[in-house]
Amino acid sequence: MASEKIVLEGRHAVLEALRAGHSVHEVFLLKGTEKKTAEEFERLCAGADIPIYYSDKAAMDRRSVSGRHQGVIATADAWEYAELEDILANAANRGEQPFLILLDGIMDPHNLGAVIRTANMAGAHGVVITKDRAVGLTAAAAKASAGAVYYTPVARVTNMARTVEQLKKAGIWTIAADMQGGSVFEADLSGPVALVIGNEGKGVARLVKEKCDFAVSIPTSGDIDSLNASVACGILAFEVVRARLKKH
Amino acid sequence: MASEKIVLEGRHAVLEALRAGHSVHEVFLLKGTEKKTAEEFERLCAGADIPIYYSDKAAMDRRSVSGRHQGVIATADAWEYAELEDILANAANRGEQPFLILLDGIMDPHNLGAVIRTANMAGAHGVVITKDRAVGLTAAAAKASAGAVYYTPVARVTNMARTVEQLKKAGIWTIAADMQGGSVFEADLSGPVALVIGNEGKGVARLVKEKCDFAVSIPTSGDIDSLNASVACGILAFEVVRARLKKH
Repeated sequence: MASEKIVLEGRHAVLEALRAGHSVHEVFLLKGTEKKTAEEFERLCAGADIPIYYSDKAAMDRRSVSGRHQGVIATADAWEYAELEDILANAANRGEQPFLILLDGIMDPHNLGAVIRTANMAGAHGVVITKDRAVGLTAAAAKASAGAVYYTPVARVTNMARTVEQLKKAGIWTIAADMQGGSVFEADLSGPVALVIGNEGKGVARLVKEKCDFAVSIPTSGDIDSLNASVACGILAFEVVRARLKKH
Repeated sequence: MASEKIVLEGRHAVLEALRAGHSVHEVFLLKGTEKKTAEEFERLCAGADIPIYYSDKAAMDRRSVSGRHQGVIATADAWEYAELEDILANAANRGEQPFLILLDGIMDPHNLGAVIRTANMAGAHGVVITKDRAVGLTAAAAKASAGAVYYTPVARVTNMARTVEQLKKAGIWTIAADMQGGSVFEADLSGPVALVIGNEGKGVARLVKEKCDFAVSIPTSGDIDSLNASVACGILAFEVVRARLKKH
């Protein structure tokens, strides 16, 4: 994967990549970038021996893929996917009970990015996505992760039902987010857990749900169908945080 | 506002507008739309006397503003903003303690939409946004709300600090989301509340924060700066739901 190159755009995305020590090849800055900002890039790039090129707006616009470069563009190695074992090792290294977030068919890169961001901030050890019928670690997903993609490992699996079985064998409680489940406010989430969040429209696939230890729901009361998938994931993830804080 | 027209795109957005009885002028469907789907549109439109036009892909693409019409486009009246008083009346009519979500400078239409969606599902009585330096009820925000914009009133105010004062006078606890605040897991959110969520980058403005009764934070533990604004809002909003459920 590392030979695949990606384009990072926007001040925040590029700064996070540099700060996290991600393999950045070159940085393009808009001529006349505010002094303080330019100095920060100069400092970070000098430390890592990364060339900076200053160009005018027309050249930046031409180079931009998203059309929203905000005066900063970089090329970098594509993100590498982790293995499920790396995520479990991440938990073991931190001496913590495993906490994983499994995404069963998330299609929207903004949702994927927001979930990786949430996983990072909730202290989860990694995110698992599916290979088929799901969005991968695209530049849009990375941008929406606000840099979390550089810290939180993301594994990609072919068969989510099988992954659920593997995790169960490893002693991890696998919990599907599903409207038919009991209220998450009454669930015990204090042990090693893997939260399974489903596709934006269809939820967790039946085959995956059947493999899970149990299902939880968020008690909602509105006029529409459901919460946004990354918002639902955030609510559930911080229920795990709450349970863990309470235990200590 | 009602004379302003907007374009709705996508199956879900148009269906929600029709189901909610929103003023839709006409619906354009892709020729060859799946029979079950077409019948649902025919039924909903016939009931409201709304014409349906079938067109080929080229014509649909030409008509599309977003480029992602999924075979369904409609024109409708723009959303009307509610007044703060409408939101309080909404709570009174439902015989519930007021629950509002105030957005102090949210810029991203996806975040605004996701917050309205969350507000609806959490049983909040309305959302308040600022007029300046903030995104309004655009078509993108409405789409991201998954139809919630048709049910949950959204008021737009010039001065959020003044709104906070008004709500305090009405006996509502005003609570800013802020990293310096105490843990939300230990806060008392069981009374009438207005949650104040800040701008994506800068958080709640100092002047607004100073007016609030208190601040709460979400206990995070990651490598990056913050959660996505709509995810943070979801976590806080469902803490209110939890507190209210516990009380009853």
